[in-house]
Amino acid sequence: MNSWIERNIGYTLVDGESQFSIDFAGMKFTEQELDALQPKFERAVREMARLEAGAIKNPDENRKVTHFTDRVDYPKTKLFTSVEKFAEQARTGKITGETGRKFTAVVVNGIGGSALGPELMQFVINGPYWNEKTDTARNGYLKVYFLDNTDSAEFADLSEVMDPETTLHLVISKSGGTQETCNNMIAMEELYAARKLSFAKHAAAITMKDSKLDKHAREDNWLAVFEMAESIGGRTSETSIVGHVPAAVTGVNFRRFLEGACHMDEWTRTADPKKNPAMMLAAMWYIAGEGKGNRNMVIVPYSDRLILLSRYLQQLVMESLGKELDLDGHVVHQGLNVFGNKGGTDAHAFIQQLNDGRDDFFATFIEVLKDAEKLPITDATDMGTYLHGFLEGLSAALRGKGRQYITIRVPQITEFELGMLIALYERAVAIYAEFININAFHQPGVQSYKLAAKGVLALREKLIKKFYELGKVTGTAAELAVKVGCPDDAVEIGGLLDKSCVNCPHITRTFCEKSNQWVYSIK
Amino acid sequence: MNSWIERNIGYTLVDGESQFSIDFAGMKFTEQELDALQPKFERAVREMARLEAGAIKNPDENRKVTHFTDRVDYPKTKLFTSVEKFAEQARTGKITGETGRKFTAVVVNGIGGSALGPELMQFVINGPYWNEKTDTARNGYLKVYFLDNTDSAEFADLSEVMDPETTLHLVISKSGGTQETCNNMIAMEELYAARKLSFAKHAAAITMKDSKLDKHAREDNWLAVFEMAESIGGRTSETSIVGHVPAAVTGVNFRRFLEGACHMDEWTRTADPKKNPAMMLAAMWYIAGEGKGNRNMVIVPYSDRLILLSRYLQQLVMESLGKELDLDGHVVHQGLNVFGNKGGTDAHAFIQQLNDGRDDFFATFIEVLKDAEKLPITDATDMGTYLHGFLEGLSAALRGKGRQYITIRVPQITEFELGMLIALYERAVAIYAEFININAFHQPGVQSYKLAAKGVLALREKLIKKFYELGKVTGTAAELAVKVGCPDDAVEIGGLLDKSCVNCPHITRTFCEKSNQWVYSIK
Repeated sequence: MNSWIERNIGYTLVDGESQFSIDFAGMKFTEQELDALQPKFERAVREMARLEAGAIKNPDENRKVTHFTDRVDYPKTKLFTSVEKFAEQARTGKITGETGRKFTAVVVNGIGGSALGPELMQFVINGPYWNEKTDTARNGYLKVYFLDNTDSAEFADLSEVMDPETTLHLVISKSGGTQETCNNMIAMEELYAARKLSFAKHAAAITMKDSKLDKHAREDNWLAVFEMAESIGGRTSETSIVGHVPAAVTGVNFRRFLEGACHMDEWTRTADPKKNPAMMLAAMWYIAGEGKGNRNMVIVPYSDRLILLSRYLQQLVMESLGKELDLDGHVVHQGLNVFGNKGGTDAHAFIQQLNDGRDDFFATFIEVLKDAEKLPITDATDMGTYLHGFLEGLSAALRGKGRQYITIRVPQITEFELGMLIALYERAVAIYAEFININAFHQPGVQSYKLAAKGVLALREKLIKKFYELGKVTGTAAELAVKVGCPDDAVEIGGLLDKSCVNCPHITRTFCEKSNQWVYSIK
Repeated sequence: MNSWIERNIGYTLVDGESQFSIDFAGMKFTEQELDALQPKFERAVREMARLEAGAIKNPDENRKVTHFTDRVDYPKTKLFTSVEKFAEQARTGKITGETGRKFTAVVVNGIGGSALGPELMQFVINGPYWNEKTDTARNGYLKVYFLDNTDSAEFADLSEVMDPETTLHLVISKSGGTQETCNNMIAMEELYAARKLSFAKHAAAITMKDSKLDKHAREDNWLAVFEMAESIGGRTSETSIVGHVPAAVTGVNFRRFLEGACHMDEWTRTADPKKNPAMMLAAMWYIAGEGKGNRNMVIVPYSDRLILLSRYLQQLVMESLGKELDLDGHVVHQGLNVFGNKGGTDAHAFIQQLNDGRDDFFATFIEVLKDAEKLPITDATDMGTYLHGFLEGLSAALRGKGRQYITIRVPQITEFELGMLIALYERAVAIYAEFININAFHQPGVQSYKLAAKGVLALREKLIKKFYELGKVTGTAAELAVKVGCPDDAVEIGGLLDKSCVNCPHITRTFCEKSNQWVYSIK
């Protein structure tokens, strides 16, 4: 047998039951490099066991990390049953909005961890055209929309197609104070009030007990409040209540999804690291990127339904691993870049660079073996044949050029396999974090920009007040900054004025070529 | 004035007429570094002038590169008029499908350069819910769907919602032989035939004269064939007929889009590189990445409508710049990675890493100043205020940590500004290619995988024949590879068998734990 074939056999892990396989033969590691990781493997085994036993694994926030274990018991809980019941009542019209009409759509209002998982799930299970199907084709389940930013264009676009009377609103914020989510909720409350409807009678919340959102929803007597455990982080909340409610009201088999995740959890608890797909995956990332993320992870699912996977993993991996300090407080500036879309399409886009250009990545291919439909192209081929051929062709081309890749194969992509995929990456991220000695479960970098944003908003309030006092004024941002007593904030003041010029009739600007600056006039 | 403010004023370029601005103050270059690029600037000026004068700028394919110049004259051509007329006839029902019913939807069948631009345009101009609007709300213009892969799931999803009688099909392939596009066309022809309808009477083609597709469409007497110039490359075809037809039938003001592109073309012909936004943009990429793409370009538009921009630029930049050889034939392995989604959402995802983790990127923010709607949040703020605040906050946080960013601001995002954005990046890519002495207009890396894919398909045909001769056989991929006389192709044979097992009743597999291999049975 030639050495390439031997390598393939040796470095392919297969779960016979689910037919899920992961093949590391396309990666350029040696047996010695793998063996050298033994102490790291041991640490990871020990720490994952501690994590699953309930130890504090997010020391900065003094928190347990329970997403790997909660999902075993979750289907047996009252919370699970209450969600399934709520969804069934929404589907059959036993719960309705204020005017008694059956719900036909759900708006999921959440950002980051409260949106990316539900978005991925919808696309994988219900496909791109779910909202264009009839109520009958949807079996009474709800159309689904997302508000996952604080952009008035997103809100305006939704308002154009949304029927307030028949729309259910899920407001998801673990802390209950996420500004973007809160903004969309307030704007939606206004929209309902303007139409003489009660938002509360169309709304349900997912949040921690006693959060601002929890109190608000209870005070206003919303349709439901579903409690989220403190020990589940946003980016790992897809197997919790955060994933469950949007899934249940849109007909997704969430129980099956959890079974897939738990099945992968079992597999990835395998003690022998060389037989443990999460351990091997983390080892590949570590060896390929020299423990510092020196190679980008390019995610290329050969499946249209999986196009959002790269975006989901971008959050899971980069927010977990992109850290300044390690657990001992040393500055390490860690991270691992993730991007990608879908193959074969990407072969007509960025894959020119992967083939010929910078050798600064490893690709991860995900093949879905089952064809959705048999579509003959020639006597001997069908559409699925070509997709497979392009994947194998690209793999061979990359191999020929010494570029690296991992291949995951699943027989089909249902809730079960999606659960397996997510659980695999969740654990690989947690293990890799042990390899590089960082806290994968906090996000301190988000604080600095939030604080700076607050500063900008405070500056804005100050400006409004000062300009009101000053009356008519004209000048560049730097000149106006002096006038209002904030000479060091000219850049931010310029930004605020630029924003105001196009949104507020009292402020205009003209560009002065000579000074290369905008000149603002405030009435 | 403090130095940061001075830097901002000095390194912000503004076009007063369009109010488009681009600010390089957040990048860490020095005046000296910029001056050192003078010879490169001069080469770029000279070469861009040669390109625009009609020189051969794609030497490998002996081709001119005319997308920067064609768009000036295109609106005055008969081709332009014929597209506008065709679109108006489709909108008003003067052209219909076979059964005489008005077209309500268009399927755009194309991949890579024939899909990413039209997809971006649709999302920016018609928004995420265009297909859910009524015919009246769409002013009679068509709903739009894309087939941009060779995935049977994509085709099956479309079939579920498509009404063949009222659907127009645009088949786009410059060469006329793109396999993925051809596959979708064949499958669609089959679908129509199965329903006793004529695909030809619902179809229009965009392709080069005398291509396979051109001949096929003319022979079958399709509704229309629009000719594509040989001198326009796929990834720079959005301002050509490729962008025009999908835009026109969906009510996009394509003339205005071209005006925006031409307006940017004028600006980016500015001789002084420090006043030329494309020259400066290319210089920033060059300095930040040390001329080798050592930093990833992270595209973060603070605008939901622009979420597909990163995917579009990923193709434009990576396929153009990701090259093995320079123009002198030296191995250089160039490239520039591009990824991103949308701000502020991404602040809840991967931006943790940008703030705290690896310092291996520069961000490009794109702010759309005009709010789609005024949505009050508090007495003093509205939704747009927050989006602006988060952008400024993130900029300040990154600056504080010594991370780099560029900020582009546009007053709003209409066809005109999208034209400006695309033209800016097209020219920056062409200029950067001159800086690093590569051919930006070919894609040789795509050939190797296409050839390898053909090999896999040929192997498959051989296998089918051999297995037919052999009758019932059982074995691992390696064993079967020997049996069919292709011992070196065991990996590819394994892949083909895996694919067949879940799609073909004659082949099954079971996993052998002992040998860690699948054992296949062929009947």
